[in-house]
Amino acid sequence: MIFSVIGTGAIGGFYGGMLAHAGQEVHFLLNSDYDWVKEQGLSITSAHLGSIHLPKVHAHSTTTDMPQSDVILVGLKSIQNEKLLPDLLPPLLKKDSVVILIQNGLGVEKDVADLFPDVSIVGGIARVSASKIGPGVIKHFDNGRLELGSYHLANVDNLEKIVSVFQTTGLPIVITPDLQLLRWRKLVWNIPFNGLSVILNTTTDQLVGNPETVQLSKEIMLEVIAGANACGSPLPESFADEMIAYTQRMRPYAPSMKLDFDQGRPLEIRYIYENPVLAARAAGYDMTRVDTLTKLLTFLERQRDLRIQP
Amino acid sequence: MIFSVIGTGAIGGFYGGMLAHAGQEVHFLLNSDYDWVKEQGLSITSAHLGSIHLPKVHAHSTTTDMPQSDVILVGLKSIQNEKLLPDLLPPLLKKDSVVILIQNGLGVEKDVADLFPDVSIVGGIARVSASKIGPGVIKHFDNGRLELGSYHLANVDNLEKIVSVFQTTGLPIVITPDLQLLRWRKLVWNIPFNGLSVILNTTTDQLVGNPETVQLSKEIMLEVIAGANACGSPLPESFADEMIAYTQRMRPYAPSMKLDFDQGRPLEIRYIYENPVLAARAAGYDMTRVDTLTKLLTFLERQRDLRIQP
Repeated sequence: MIFSVIGTGAIGGFYGGMLAHAGQEVHFLLNSDYDWVKEQGLSITSAHLGSIHLPKVHAHSTTTDMPQSDVILVGLKSIQNEKLLPDLLPPLLKKDSVVILIQNGLGVEKDVADLFPDVSIVGGIARVSASKIGPGVIKHFDNGRLELGSYHLANVDNLEKIVSVFQTTGLPIVITPDLQLLRWRKLVWNIPFNGLSVILNTTTDQLVGNPETVQLSKEIMLEVIAGANACGSPLPESFADEMIAYTQRMRPYAPSMKLDFDQGRPLEIRYIYENPVLAARAAGYDMTRVDTLTKLLTFLERQRDLRIQP
Repeated sequence: MIFSVIGTGAIGGFYGGMLAHAGQEVHFLLNSDYDWVKEQGLSITSAHLGSIHLPKVHAHSTTTDMPQSDVILVGLKSIQNEKLLPDLLPPLLKKDSVVILIQNGLGVEKDVADLFPDVSIVGGIARVSASKIGPGVIKHFDNGRLELGSYHLANVDNLEKIVSVFQTTGLPIVITPDLQLLRWRKLVWNIPFNGLSVILNTTTDQLVGNPETVQLSKEIMLEVIAGANACGSPLPESFADEMIAYTQRMRPYAPSMKLDFDQGRPLEIRYIYENPVLAARAAGYDMTRVDTLTKLLTFLERQRDLRIQP
């Protein structure tokens, strides 16, 4: 089974690296890190898993050099899909290729399916804390579970085969029958903590360590849960308390949108905020707090970009 | 008629100065500017009104030196009332003194009335753009109308008398029969623009010049209008569009809460945000966007104060 990774950042580098370490054939598309990884290989440093160095990996600077692949892991930012996948994906596709979008937010699969109507698409949620800390170096902090849900599969057996190969990594992997529920569950965490960490220039420990923001985070979560239920994805209200308690146990953490904001990268507002607001509104529920965050974030991104570009 | 001004900032300095310029006896309580104003007097610079210099004013550093007064103009920040007025006010009070609270927000009169149950209290809204730009120097930009509404008056004729004396300044002054409506009307502007300018570190021109924030400002205004109506203060929805258009005609402006935030002063969150949210909620309406701003501002003020105090 041939794997390709498009977007070798924290997520793509971690899962692709773990697969390569387990002996699988994995091809990495690299951008700024290409020269380094071609010469020095790829590393995953981890207190939990032990540290891994892969001195020789299949590094590529363009997908036209890469083989047609059985599994294509997409670790791009969701908002890059529409711009990049039309060029990057076709050279990798063969009959029965499965594209796994390991991305956040609602509606990513549909937008890729609109571009590639016949291709098998699976949504993935990475339960992992990891950062790329240098060229070809991924630092793994915690967890690692991968959750997959089918969006469109030409051959339903394919997903089971992928899972059994993935299990050679030793990382937990599960298939969920309800991709939308998986997406909404992750949004319950992502919507409050990504947005508030950008708007308030802070980290998760501060958000769940001060009374007004822990209450606001919970109210936002309850809105997302009500939105999910309106859209037919059943989530209990108690899930909000669970996520608050989970975040209070986590070490101080800067969510991905905070890192994107600080490093001048585009924010995933469309998939993490706009699409959920629109989906809930279409189902008759107005997520007013989430909509407020959406507009605050849109303004902050615009003002940041005006500062960056002279 | 003897006037006293407690809190000689932009508002107290402007109205007190205009009254003194019109020949009224006005006593100013000053803090850091005391020595300067005692020596140099008070100035109001204005393109509209012509500039005024008052070389000699009644400057005081404590109210125990000040005469009992017919009218006491309070230009403190609303949140300072409870701490400062119990000491500052008693020396100025005589039978039939009227205390005019020229302050923002909901519930200021009630809190002062709880401290001084027998004193006549009037609420005031200043329709003025003015800043204190140096010791004893107030820069006036625009407008100047004063709107008053009775909260508790021992002698109902007193307010008419005050108005006729005030008219010697040439500034417009009106008495409104509905103080609560006056307060809510001002909140329709104050709630979106004070909060958003702090949270987004920006000025009014940017807020009404970008699509996402002009829409958010309007949605917040509609929430405040719905809150006002729930509390029995009738305001039409069209007032939101009016306030947006008014703000789009204004020159770029940093609302008072933005100046307070940048200069390390306490924010008037309690009167501009918390009290209106509580009042609307008690009347059965949940202002979720306003409540979200409340919590964001509370967090930002706390984090700022942690940075300031080592």
